[in-house]
Amino acid sequence: MRKILVIGIGAGNPDHLTLQAVKALQTVDVFFVLDKGSVKDELVDLRRSIVDEHVTRPYRWLEGRDPERDRNPSDYVATIDAWRRARADVCQGLLASLGPDEVGAFLVWGDPSLYDSTLAILDDLASRGESFEVSVIPGVTSVAALTAGHQVALNQVGRPVQITTGRRLASGWPDGVSDVAVMLDASYSFEGVDPDTWIYWGAYLGMPDEILVAGRVGDVAPRIRELRDEARARKGWIMDTYLLRRT
Amino acid sequence: MRKILVIGIGAGNPDHLTLQAVKALQTVDVFFVLDKGSVKDELVDLRRSIVDEHVTRPYRWLEGRDPERDRNPSDYVATIDAWRRARADVCQGLLASLGPDEVGAFLVWGDPSLYDSTLAILDDLASRGESFEVSVIPGVTSVAALTAGHQVALNQVGRPVQITTGRRLASGWPDGVSDVAVMLDASYSFEGVDPDTWIYWGAYLGMPDEILVAGRVGDVAPRIRELRDEARARKGWIMDTYLLRRT
Ligand SMILES: C[S@@+](CC[C@H](N)C(=O)[O-])C[C@H]1O[C@@H](n2cnc3c(N)ncnc32)[C@H](O)[C@@H]1O
Ligand SMILES: C[S@@+](CC[C@H](N)C(=O)[O-])C[C@H]1O[C@@H](n2cnc3c(N)ncnc32)[C@H](O)[C@@H]1O
Repeated sequence: MRKILVIGIGAGNPDHLTLQAVKALQTVDVFFVLDKGSVKDELVDLRRSIVDEHVTRPYRWLEGRDPERDRNPSDYVATIDAWRRARADVCQGLLASLGPDEVGAFLVWGDPSLYDSTLAILDDLASRGESFEVSVIPGVTSVAALTAGHQVALNQVGRPVQITTGRRLASGWPDGVSDVAVMLDASYSFEGVDPDTWIYWGAYLGMPDEILVAGRVGDVAPRIRELRDEARARKGWIMDTYLLRRT
Repeated sequence: MRKILVIGIGAGNPDHLTLQAVKALQTVDVFFVLDKGSVKDELVDLRRSIVDEHVTRPYRWLEGRDPERDRNPSDYVATIDAWRRARADVCQGLLASLGPDEVGAFLVWGDPSLYDSTLAILDDLASRGESFEVSVIPGVTSVAALTAGHQVALNQVGRPVQITTGRRLASGWPDGVSDVAVMLDASYSFEGVDPDTWIYWGAYLGMPDEILVAGRVGDVAPRIRELRDEARARKGWIMDTYLLRRT
């Protein structure tokens, strides 16, 4: 039976890798990598250097081109679905090179359960009749990297926390929570919240370029926009996450 | 300056430990451990064996008795606050043994940001005038261990997810979310949700005793209660987490 490992590699610091992930890497015959084009080359390089550092047995490294995705779709779910099918096509092509008893692996940013489509792609491949065994190795999320950087808790004592997207936050503060972690925000949605909200913002968490800003939204939002624009222009891409807290 | 590391050690599997955590462990002079009494000895032992395995330099191991906490308080926040102060007293006692340039460490279950009071205790100690530098090392959460075990995503595409407690869930399904991860549930609160909700339940995640059950709440809730009661009776304690999903 072919085996596919979905390995969470943590959110930027190569030392976020768990011992379980290191051991799993050492069993892999083929690494599957979805290349997003020049913009995020750095993220592919990071995966490559993780493998170089921890894998001593021979392995194959297969890159597929990740299909383009509309960044501002009118129908978010349908667009993501179509994009996911296109990714599944690419991955089915990659999978074809995996021998009957070989082990393939996807190295997934952060934890594989959080806003990542690898597990959905594998579901799609299985429903296309591909057969393989799956094993998932949990990783450190960018949310955990954010709270570690700021030395804050994600939740207030006994209270819930919501994890959501910038797109969702833009349509209003979520009901019933005073703590919201926001990912995938390309539109500065934090600028729309009550200025008395506290924000813990982080970009390139765990990486040498890490930037952390915390404060009252009304005070620090302009500085975050400025830092974000400047960093993205300089590096060509940005990944940032933040926690909003009302007390 | 005294230094205190708050190290996330993952949620049960000793191999959840990150390389960053392993490196940090090797710098520690004193490990601070809050002992919960006989019930959870196994969890203290796990920390001890992690240290034994990864630390070769001499270290001190200091255990303090974690104050008892009312499990069914009428005022949850006030009870937690009082308990936290009592813990701070214990920790201040432990801290007294840390020399001026030494490194102390708390090994925190899962990730230090999620339903854990260590960071709050350190805030309390700082406000009592203790001075030290803090550094937080993120870890794999029990939520990530749960979703890895079940090979499912935490969120649906583009949708939010809420992390909450059993106590909160018991007072009603949270507004605005169809995915809810529940921790700290001693009262089978899943039994109160719509029977068509899907549940992914896990106990002793990442440990040799790991138990996973998934299905429609209406179908599997009785089996989860039975497994939970049986396991808790046998081991003397249980830790379980679950994800509820409405599609
Ligand atoms: C497609 S999601 C993947 C999340 C990942 N699976 C995790 O567990 O963190 C990408 C989003 O994660 C966040 N993110 C991931 N890595 C980050 C980092 N190193 N610094 C800041 N944000 C990060 C950003 O919000 C980004 O838009
Ligand atoms: C005080 S909280 C600490 C959570 C921890 N900081 C984390 O990141 O997972 C303890 C709760 O976490 C969950 N939990 C922790 N470890 C677990 C495990 N190995 N299996 C199942 N649930 C676990 C349970 O819901 C438990 O009641």
